[in-house]
Amino acid sequence: MEPFVMYNPVKLHFGRGVADKLGKSVSKYGKRVLLVYGGGSIKRNGVYDQVMAQLKEAGAEVFEYSGIKPNPVIEDVDAAAALGREKKADVILAVGGGSVIDSAKIISITIPVGHSGWEFMKNRQKPKSAVPLIAVLTLAATGTEMNRFAVVQNNATKEKLGYGDPLTYPKESFLDPAYTISVPKDYTAYGITDLIAHCLEAYFGEGEATLSDRFVYAIIKEAMEHGPALMNDPENYALREKIMYAATNALNNLTSYGRKSGEWGVHSVGHVLSVLYDVPHGASLSIVYPAWLKLHTPKIPRRIETLGLNLFGVSAAGQAIHALESFFTSIGSPVRLADTGIDTAKHGEEIFATLVSNKAGGNYHKLNEADYRGLIRLMG
Amino acid sequence: MEPFVMYNPVKLHFGRGVADKLGKSVSKYGKRVLLVYGGGSIKRNGVYDQVMAQLKEAGAEVFEYSGIKPNPVIEDVDAAAALGREKKADVILAVGGGSVIDSAKIISITIPVGHSGWEFMKNRQKPKSAVPLIAVLTLAATGTEMNRFAVVQNNATKEKLGYGDPLTYPKESFLDPAYTISVPKDYTAYGITDLIAHCLEAYFGEGEATLSDRFVYAIIKEAMEHGPALMNDPENYALREKIMYAATNALNNLTSYGRKSGEWGVHSVGHVLSVLYDVPHGASLSIVYPAWLKLHTPKIPRRIETLGLNLFGVSAAGQAIHALESFFTSIGSPVRLADTGIDTAKHGEEIFATLVSNKAGGNYHKLNEADYRGLIRLMG
Repeated sequence: MEPFVMYNPVKLHFGRGVADKLGKSVSKYGKRVLLVYGGGSIKRNGVYDQVMAQLKEAGAEVFEYSGIKPNPVIEDVDAAAALGREKKADVILAVGGGSVIDSAKIISITIPVGHSGWEFMKNRQKPKSAVPLIAVLTLAATGTEMNRFAVVQNNATKEKLGYGDPLTYPKESFLDPAYTISVPKDYTAYGITDLIAHCLEAYFGEGEATLSDRFVYAIIKEAMEHGPALMNDPENYALREKIMYAATNALNNLTSYGRKSGEWGVHSVGHVLSVLYDVPHGASLSIVYPAWLKLHTPKIPRRIETLGLNLFGVSAAGQAIHALESFFTSIGSPVRLADTGIDTAKHGEEIFATLVSNKAGGNYHKLNEADYRGLIRLMG
Repeated sequence: MEPFVMYNPVKLHFGRGVADKLGKSVSKYGKRVLLVYGGGSIKRNGVYDQVMAQLKEAGAEVFEYSGIKPNPVIEDVDAAAALGREKKADVILAVGGGSVIDSAKIISITIPVGHSGWEFMKNRQKPKSAVPLIAVLTLAATGTEMNRFAVVQNNATKEKLGYGDPLTYPKESFLDPAYTISVPKDYTAYGITDLIAHCLEAYFGEGEATLSDRFVYAIIKEAMEHGPALMNDPENYALREKIMYAATNALNNLTSYGRKSGEWGVHSVGHVLSVLYDVPHGASLSIVYPAWLKLHTPKIPRRIETLGLNLFGVSAAGQAIHALESFFTSIGSPVRLADTGIDTAKHGEEIFATLVSNKAGGNYHKLNEADYRGLIRLMG
């Protein structure tokens, strides 16, 4: 193992009714609250009203920024930061899924400065301060509620970048699985795909960390056991709970301690599909992962075989990849570009060019131009 | 699952050479350091010199309290607290295994008050403040480095009690697996037993938490794969590393989130054996656990079967218990009182009386007097 620091500063409240403590938590940081959310689903499912009741009880003055997109864009981040700056927000309350909370992380460091949040992301610039962030999660998927990472895209430059800093952890997060019951089936499936992909990105990273590997198997098996059951019974609270808790653990550092780095090549390629064709994040990952594994089988056969043995009880790498693909298909997450209506004969060159311009590739297994060609063929 | 807060404030530094940052961490809290350690093994293996070099570099004034016993006693806690109070210690540095760090946790809350630390433990009294505690771990076993729990005994009253409060978490812990290489074989085995027992105490607690169960299997399997290898190759750093990291995860909350409570009945009975006959903590657990499982098979057969299936691939509860017993025996941890020279024909009544007076029993599966008789017979 590599030396590491095991530490996560997020205080995560999990379970039915936990948002009852939201007002008290927000109050610790002040009365002027920048409320950030997405397209209004929280108004339809009652979450908005519950949150506002908490803020009212806490005597907060609320400034709202809504309309964060599912693949969040830097324009919204900058506009919300401008509002927060103008209103002198003491605290940000982000209510939504990964797109909202990721945006809020960048907003939190952009409020104190005069420039676009993109400068942090593009130049890997370190922030000096951040407005405290509290998150209420409404989608089990990205794990953003208990980590410092954010992904935002820039449509002007066709880039989708990741960013993280010790200052971009939420202070507290509130996870009530009941808030995810109204998530549509497709996004429920993409969330399951996303959490599995996070575990795999850790697993295929650099460096031996056997207990972290076992945590990877544990989380993926939890998702594979309860995910299909949830797809058949989307209003089942107990199943929502299992998937939501699995998603948090899939990217809160637990699967990474002792590794030199995670991999993240699949995410990097997936981001290109999202930025080009607005493919939902989780859907992009179930398309890229099987292709990535097929491409890497000659290089890391044992690693893929070990995964297959632990997840599916199969011994060959090809069987493991097939089983993973079948799982994604079983929950309705696409495994080929064609499944989402993207024709590689027509769009292959555009994908290739964007992979090149984004320098898509992992931390450990770098991808070259021949790899891009191979991936496009395998994803077709 | 029960609603819960997922949070652990300890900053844990893990890996070779991490103690190089010790001086800097101690300095955050002040210059007056109460150094607490045990019987002097840290002087023989060089850890003391490394720690003192760090403290010297940090310009610290050091007040030493040594002689903490393997089964730590309240007299040492109170004497060390008196020293810390007299010297106006800014920070406590505990260097050792569970006994030293557990003692230091109670010392940290006893320094600010005028009474014995036992009053906190006996009356479950809440402390108002604590002197900051930094830990350097030299034994992989109890998990105390990343939790708030402490166990201390009172020889006068023949009690061994557990205690924990949000104020008794260490601020930071330093874990260099190289520091555990000189641990003798028997205590290496007891450490492995201890970490497995911690996982089981979580597993047999109240409430369903399937991902936490999977983490239990992950940690126990890690210990069962690498523990025997370590017993055959005790100077192997990579194996020391695996066991040390497993022990931390076995009791840092990870296996407990979502449960209503842990069990802890086996620990409670084990403490009686330690207080009466000075049986090392881990050794007491490998004696009590098989007996406890046999006693509880009629009540919770499915739970024991599920454990056996996941750990050993066996389907009957009896097979699971036999496999666990065989594992303990294979690493040299005793599974019967007779293995440690305690004759139940001679001492049975004394053990019974002390179980009764200590009200030994778990949070979930309570033990009555008939259970005590059953356990004594099964441990014999």
